[in-house]
Amino acid sequence: MKIYFAGAIRGGRDDAALYLEIVKLLRAFGEVLTEHVADAELTALGEPSDDRAIYDRDLAWLREADCLVAEVTMPSLGVGYEIGKATEWGRRVLCLYRPSDARLLSAMIAASDGVTLREYQSASDLKEIFDDFFATR
Amino acid sequence: MKIYFAGAIRGGRDDAALYLEIVKLLRAFGEVLTEHVADAELTALGEPSDDRAIYDRDLAWLREADCLVAEVTMPSLGVGYEIGKATEWGRRVLCLYRPSDARLLSAMIAASDGVTLREYQSASDLKEIFDDFFATR
Repeated sequence: MKIYFAGAIRGGRDDAALYLEIVKLLRAFGEVLTEHVADAELTALGEPSDDRAIYDRDLAWLREADCLVAEVTMPSLGVGYEIGKATEWGRRVLCLYRPSDARLLSAMIAASDGVTLREYQSASDLKEIFDDFFATR
Repeated sequence: MKIYFAGAIRGGRDDAALYLEIVKLLRAFGEVLTEHVADAELTALGEPSDDRAIYDRDLAWLREADCLVAEVTMPSLGVGYEIGKATEWGRRVLCLYRPSDARLLSAMIAASDGVTLREYQSASDLKEIFDDFFATR
């Protein structure tokens, strides 16, 4: 099982520590292709590579992946773009969202065909969500 | 020419006044299917409709559109998703971006196949950008 994990980078790194928890949990279910998304040293300036190299690598990983797991609490153009592509390509997509009073999730993600949306409060809720998602194909 | 204009709604409404300037300019080039994105009364809570109705309507408009024009300065999952779909469907895509020191544009948008990216500073720069984009097919 190859897993593409998506989280905000240039959209903002407020959730970077949580992304690391997610990546650690996902390793029990398969190979996480995008572990750099959880790198605590990666800032909102993003990776030092040029944009074309990042784009080509990430699209190749997304094509190679069996599923996309996206943390969608922080708005992010790149994460939205990847969900749009993955649903178009028939990849399974799991979106993880922490509800808050301050913000609502985009209707385009919440109601998207091909997306399994699971709300949660903290990393301790995720193992059960992943058990459910990876138990069904 | 049917134009799908995309801008952040639940991602944040800081640029709503600018979206209205963009919609007014775009009307010279075709029918703007998504004028509500520029509605000054639309807050980050989004439209009162349910998410599924919004999703179905917006996806139908995006399929019907000849091109997508997206303002991508404000991170937005929905705008990213629409760019992912539109590029996959072979629609022409124009992304408008205001560079700043505070934030960098997602590499997935900046380097995406099928995206024409134009940087600008204010609405007064846009007529020339639109003249260029709509002059070529």
